[in-house]
Amino acid sequence: MDIINLMKSLRESTDGKIVLLVADGIGGLAQKPGGLTELETAKTPNLDALAKIGVQGLSTPIKPGITPGSGPGHLGLFGYDPLKYIIGRGALEAAGIGFAMTDNDVAIRCNFCTTDANGNITDRRAGRIASEESAKVVETLKAIKIPGIEVFVEPVKEHRFVVVFRGAGLGDAVADTDPQKTGVPVLDPVARDTASQKTAEIAKQFHEQAVKILAGQPKANNHTMRGFAKKPHMPSYEEIYGLRAACIAVYPMYKGLASFAGMDIVGAATTLSEEIDCLEKEWKNYDFFFVHFKYTDSRGEDGQFDEKVKMIEEFDSIIPRVMAMKPACLVVTGDHSTPAVMSSHSFHPVPTLFVSDLARTDATTEYSERAAVLGGLGQFEAMYIMPMAMAHAGKLGKFGA
Amino acid sequence: MDIINLMKSLRESTDGKIVLLVADGIGGLAQKPGGLTELETAKTPNLDALAKIGVQGLSTPIKPGITPGSGPGHLGLFGYDPLKYIIGRGALEAAGIGFAMTDNDVAIRCNFCTTDANGNITDRRAGRIASEESAKVVETLKAIKIPGIEVFVEPVKEHRFVVVFRGAGLGDAVADTDPQKTGVPVLDPVARDTASQKTAEIAKQFHEQAVKILAGQPKANNHTMRGFAKKPHMPSYEEIYGLRAACIAVYPMYKGLASFAGMDIVGAATTLSEEIDCLEKEWKNYDFFFVHFKYTDSRGEDGQFDEKVKMIEEFDSIIPRVMAMKPACLVVTGDHSTPAVMSSHSFHPVPTLFVSDLARTDATTEYSERAAVLGGLGQFEAMYIMPMAMAHAGKLGKFGA
Repeated sequence: MDIINLMKSLRESTDGKIVLLVADGIGGLAQKPGGLTELETAKTPNLDALAKIGVQGLSTPIKPGITPGSGPGHLGLFGYDPLKYIIGRGALEAAGIGFAMTDNDVAIRCNFCTTDANGNITDRRAGRIASEESAKVVETLKAIKIPGIEVFVEPVKEHRFVVVFRGAGLGDAVADTDPQKTGVPVLDPVARDTASQKTAEIAKQFHEQAVKILAGQPKANNHTMRGFAKKPHMPSYEEIYGLRAACIAVYPMYKGLASFAGMDIVGAATTLSEEIDCLEKEWKNYDFFFVHFKYTDSRGEDGQFDEKVKMIEEFDSIIPRVMAMKPACLVVTGDHSTPAVMSSHSFHPVPTLFVSDLARTDATTEYSERAAVLGGLGQFEAMYIMPMAMAHAGKLGKFGA
Repeated sequence: MDIINLMKSLRESTDGKIVLLVADGIGGLAQKPGGLTELETAKTPNLDALAKIGVQGLSTPIKPGITPGSGPGHLGLFGYDPLKYIIGRGALEAAGIGFAMTDNDVAIRCNFCTTDANGNITDRRAGRIASEESAKVVETLKAIKIPGIEVFVEPVKEHRFVVVFRGAGLGDAVADTDPQKTGVPVLDPVARDTASQKTAEIAKQFHEQAVKILAGQPKANNHTMRGFAKKPHMPSYEEIYGLRAACIAVYPMYKGLASFAGMDIVGAATTLSEEIDCLEKEWKNYDFFFVHFKYTDSRGEDGQFDEKVKMIEEFDSIIPRVMAMKPACLVVTGDHSTPAVMSSHSFHPVPTLFVSDLARTDATTEYSERAAVLGGLGQFEAMYIMPMAMAHAGKLGKFGA
C-alpha cells in the first residue's frame, strides 16, 4: 500500500485547517564555506518563535542530489511521488500560462523557428523574437481551424507558445517535431502508439495551416512542436485527503500545478500581503490552503543574496497574521533551495517547520538550515510532508488495530 | 524512474573531478560503552579541517542493521542498489583474484575435499590444505580440456580455487555440488534452467577429469563446485554518469568490483602513498577516481584497535595531496564499519564527508562517528553517495521544469 492509499484509508474529517506556506526556493547556501545562508542571515523573529514551539527538519524534494524543477518540486510538496507522477512538458507549459486543461486536452510546447526557401531550419528560436512581436504572430495562428477539434493557441515568452487540441480520444504519445539542429526541415509529427495517431494527424494539419499563415513573417515563418502531453492523471486532494483545498498564488505556474491536484484557485492576489488577505477571506470555505510566495526564489535565481534575505524577512512578517487564524497545522517550507550563489534551483534539502499542538517540540530555537539539521523531524522526502501535516492536524486515524 | 535512470537523464559534462576516497571499514566502535571509536581516537587534523568546510552524514551501506560483505558494500558506494545488483559468489571470487571476466564466462568457487575409497566425503576442506601446496595441485588441473570451451583454473587460498568456463551461451543456474556434509559423495552439477544445461554438462566433464588427475593426492583428491555465476549485468559508469572512471586499489578484489562497474584499473600501487602518486599521474585522464585504502579494514578484522587508529592517521596524512589537485567534489567514506572490538565487518553506518564549493557547511568540526550524527547530510543509504557526488560536482541538471 503506497502513502496515497494509506491517506485514503486513514483520513478523518475534523474542523482544523492545514496551511502549507511555501516560500519558493527558501533554502540557500553561504557566500563562503562556513558562512551564513540567506535564511540564517535574515532577521526572522516570527519564524524563530514558531521554531521554539514547533518541530522542524530537512525535506529532500526528490531524492538526495536531485535538483527539482517547479513541477516535480511542488508535486512532492503536494504529497505525490514526483518520480511516479510526471507532468508532461506541454501540460507544464500550459499550467505556466494559467491555461486550465481538461481531460480531453493535449498541450504542446511550440517554438517559432526560421526556415529558408527550401524549408530547412536556419534558426531554431526565430532569432529569439521579442515577446510582444511573438504574441502578435501567435494571434494570427488563432485562425487555424481543424474539423471536430477545438484548437487553442497562446503566447508564452519570446519564441515560445502553447497549442492545445481539445477533443475526445486524443493520445499524447507523439514525437517532437524539432530536429534539434539547423539545415534540415521541421519533422512531421509521428505517433508512437495507435491511440495517438489522431493527435499526430491533427498536429500535421495544424502545422500545414500555420506554415501558410506564417509565410510572410521575416523571422517566425515556421514552428516546431515538443512535449505533447495530456493533463497528468492524479487523484485529487478531495479523493486522497478528503480536504477541500485552495491555492493562493500570484504566478500562473503554481495555480496550474495546484489545479492538477484538484485545488480551487482562489483570489487574485498580486502581493504576499494580498495573498494573506485572501487566506483570511477564504478561511471558512476550505480545509487546506496552499499559499505560494514566489520572490524568495526569484531573488535567488537572480543571484541577489541580500535581496533574497529581504524577501525572507517579508515572508517572516506575515506569519503573525497566519497564526492569528489558528491553523490546526501550519507547515512552512519551500519546494527546493535556490542559493543566490548558484543563481539556480539546487539539490540542497529544505528547512521545513511544523507548528501544531501535536508537534513534539525539538531543541531548535530558530528556523534555518543549520537548525533544521538538528530538528526533531530529521531528514525526509517532501512527499511525506502532507501525511505529516494530516497527522499534526489530527486528521489521520490509526493504521491497523 | 529509479536513481540510475535519473542519473542517465540528468547528467551533465563538466571539467571537475570527483574523488571517492574509501577507507575500507573506517567506521568503528569504542572499546567500552561511552568511549571513543578508532576514528575518534585517531589524530586526523586534515580530515577535521575538511569537516569544517564540508558537510557530513552517516551512510547506511545496505539497510539499517545489515552488515555488508565487500561486494555489496562497494556496489552501494558505486551507486548501485546492492539489493538489486547481486554479484554471484563465483564472480566475486574471480574478482577477488583479479581474474578479468568476460560476458561469455561462468565462474565457480571450488573447494578441494577429501573422499574415501567409496567416493564419500571425509573432509569438506581437504584438511585446510596449505595455500602453497594447494596451488601446486591447482596447477595439475590446468591439463583439463573440454572441447569448444576455454577452461581457466586459478588458486585462491588454502583449499579454495576458481574455475572459469568461457564459451558462448553458458547459463549460470547450476546447483552447488557440495552436499554440505560428510559421508556422502560430491553431487552432480544439476542445471536449474535449460540455458544452463550445457554449463552443467561441462562442469560434470570437468569434475570427472579432475577426479582422475587428483586420484593420487593424499588430501585434495576431489573437489566441490559452488556459486556458479556469470559476470553481473550492470550499466557502466560511462553509461550512467558519462564519467571516465578509474580505480586505484592495491587488492585484486576491489579492482575486480570496480571493473564490473566499467572502471579502468590504473597503476600498480602497493601502498597508499603510491596510490596517491597514481592519482596525481592519472588526474588529467579521468573524471572520476575510486581510491581504495585497505588497511583500516584489515586492522579492524584483526581486532587491533590501536593499529587501526594508526592506519586512520596514515589515511589522514594523504588528504592534503588529494586536496592540492582541487577536486570538484571529494567524498571520504568507507564501504562499511569494521570495529576492532568485533574483529569483523559490522552494520553500523559510516561517517561520510563531502567537500565541494556547493557543500552546505554544517556545524561539525571533526570527521567522526559522533560528528556525523550531527552532520548536515543526516543519514542516507550509500547508493545515494554517487548522486550526491554528481550534484556537489555540478554535474547534474534539473529534474523537470
